[in-house]
Amino acid sequence: MPSASTSVWDASELPALAGFLLERLRAERIRVHAITNAAAQTLTANLLLAAGGIPSLTVAPEEVSSFTSRADALLVNLGTLDGDRRAAIPRAIATAGARAKPWVLDPVFVEASPSRLEFARSCLADRPHVLRCNAGEFAALSGEDATPASVQAFAQRQRTIVALTGAVDLVADGASMLRIENGHPLMDRVTAMGCAATAMVAAFTALHDSALEAAAAALLVVGVAGEIAARDAKGPGTFQPILLDTLHNLEPTILVRHGRCS
Amino acid sequence: MPSASTSVWDASELPALAGFLLERLRAERIRVHAITNAAAQTLTANLLLAAGGIPSLTVAPEEVSSFTSRADALLVNLGTLDGDRRAAIPRAIATAGARAKPWVLDPVFVEASPSRLEFARSCLADRPHVLRCNAGEFAALSGEDATPASVQAFAQRQRTIVALTGAVDLVADGASMLRIENGHPLMDRVTAMGCAATAMVAAFTALHDSALEAAAAALLVVGVAGEIAARDAKGPGTFQPILLDTLHNLEPTILVRHGRCS
Amino acid sequence: MPSASTSVWDASELPALAGFLLERLRAERIRVHAITNAAAQTLTANLLLAAGGIPSLTVAPEEVSSFTSRADALLVNLGTLDGDRRAAIPRAIATAGARAKPWVLDPVFVEASPSRLEFARSCLADRPHVLRCNAGEFAALSGEDATPASVQAFAQRQRTIVALTGAVDLVADGASMLRIENGHPLMDRVTAMGCAATAMVAAFTALHDSALEAAAAALLVVGVAGEIAARDAKGPGTFQPILLDTLHNLEPTILVRHGRCS
Repeated sequence: MPSASTSVWDASELPALAGFLLERLRAERIRVHAITNAAAQTLTANLLLAAGGIPSLTVAPEEVSSFTSRADALLVNLGTLDGDRRAAIPRAIATAGARAKPWVLDPVFVEASPSRLEFARSCLADRPHVLRCNAGEFAALSGEDATPASVQAFAQRQRTIVALTGAVDLVADGASMLRIENGHPLMDRVTAMGCAATAMVAAFTALHDSALEAAAAALLVVGVAGEIAARDAKGPGTFQPILLDTLHNLEPTILVRHGRCS
Repeated sequence: MPSASTSVWDASELPALAGFLLERLRAERIRVHAITNAAAQTLTANLLLAAGGIPSLTVAPEEVSSFTSRADALLVNLGTLDGDRRAAIPRAIATAGARAKPWVLDPVFVEASPSRLEFARSCLADRPHVLRCNAGEFAALSGEDATPASVQAFAQRQRTIVALTGAVDLVADGASMLRIENGHPLMDRVTAMGCAATAMVAAFTALHDSALEAAAAALLVVGVAGEIAARDAKGPGTFQPILLDTLHNLEPTILVRHGRCS
Repeated sequence: MPSASTSVWDASELPALAGFLLERLRAERIRVHAITNAAAQTLTANLLLAAGGIPSLTVAPEEVSSFTSRADALLVNLGTLDGDRRAAIPRAIATAGARAKPWVLDPVFVEASPSRLEFARSCLADRPHVLRCNAGEFAALSGEDATPASVQAFAQRQRTIVALTGAVDLVADGASMLRIENGHPLMDRVTAMGCAATAMVAAFTALHDSALEAAAAALLVVGVAGEIAARDAKGPGTFQPILLDTLHNLEPTILVRHGRCS
């Protein structure tokens, strides 16, 4: 059984680590301050609550330092990047740095807006513990198509963990790479499901020294919950509440049974 | 079978057109940029995703032109009309005009706020492809009670399509009028259901030259989905996810069987 | 059977009063203007709609006076306290005062942000009809741990009703105290459930002269709905839509059967 600071030496141990971290998240009621987009705030909060954590969400610049100081981890999501969020994010990142709290960057739709891309690059220069992105966002940030090699190289260049999500999730630290194969296509039909999953990444980075493994374990948890939820859902509408129920009730043994990683 | 640019000559063909446009929306993954109110953002995104489209939602003034340029259609909803939205909307409308993208205006609660009414009038002067409103909003904008004749006259005066929603939806272009009788009272007990339906109107205007028919077809799709969802729902809470499931799974033949228009 | 202006003389009459007020809320379609946090806006609107009321939600400073004037009651929730909300809240409170409309204060997470605590104190000085808070928020505002005696003393000092929510809700006016024992732990696993319940408190204060009883009755209604919903829910995800269904269908006789107050 891994302890929180023991790294797994083999991807086959990741599901057990994921279960261990989920139980700790519940026991310690991990707090995540999420500066996230308007469509993601409710689901992000509900997913963290379902998992056993405690969310906070303010984007008011004068408040984010206080909230970040009280939190165990910070999530910075660049969706709906309005004036308050632009002013709040650098303050929250600075507070996380000063207090040695892990933080995670989610550069939503960065390929769609030059001003957002520039802002994302300045965030990335502050070295998030994890960068979670999809192929389009990765290409905009790195200037290259997403391949295992380009993801690994970008992680090395940026000295961060890159968690590239897609049909298979790749999590790379510049040297090692973990691949998570859990998940379900309905997850792409619910707005902000990826954003909310990134909040789990943030929570797990507060519980485990290896951000590579923490990120992979969090994506595995949400992916397994999604697969199980999809069995009972009749579409994307019922999928969302059933996924939250599944996450709330998820047992570590289920993660070991269903987790697929390499 | 109508093609996308063929107008229907008879209201009885509208359900088939609605099915055709829904299939095209799915095949082409139509993108809608929605500047919409805070309570509508999540449902609007989820309804578009359930229908097969791709939503974006930023209201940041410096970003809306980029997002509108990438989208196939623009939705402008005046709920929760804060400073960012006031600054963003004219820019988005100008971009839609310059790029010849259709856009739809939803003047939520315009009867409740003089400053919002003035803003709505300036938007209307830019000639949206469709104005979607209810009776109260219509009365505030036009100065007249909503009747088939006053709706037709206002559409003619404003040189736009007016889609007046209510127990029966009236869609008028100043000359012709289509009436849609689908829908269910539970739709009024879910916040932003009408706002989200208007996003479907925007998506369909990107797929069909006649904005009159596109608007009517979109209201028919959401109305039929609402009727079917209401059979299995036990109240407004379960109605919303079931409606999204229904829309996700909706077959054109169901629209032909259930569509009621004249 | 109590009329709207008759106070109950015994806590055992509170469930009947709650049923009476719920029926009146439905018959009169009570309007609540809610200045509330970003994660609460949708659920607050949906809970009011499910109960039979009509919500409005704008936080734009130039609009809140118009909306408050049209509403029957005002809710001021201090979550996600950004610049618009800071500017809008004093205007809305002033309008409520000038128009003699009841208003309710919900000082969310006030213990986490010094600037929010200061703002909450200035709101409290304007004497809300009801202050709804949890133990942490109470401690930050009053400087004392929450006990029945300290709650009663704070209500007396502030000349307001204090509704302290927790496993048992305490509602105090400085002299009398009502205790509500309804509710379910899943309510704490859905973001903004407490915020949405406070919107019911606001609606009921528009219908009943005793804000003490109105607040207690509203908490009883939501608590009973939560208990009933929890029977059918499999977790926090399905709990939320089922709670809205339950509230929509709730009969006064159910409140009398399930209400537990003293």
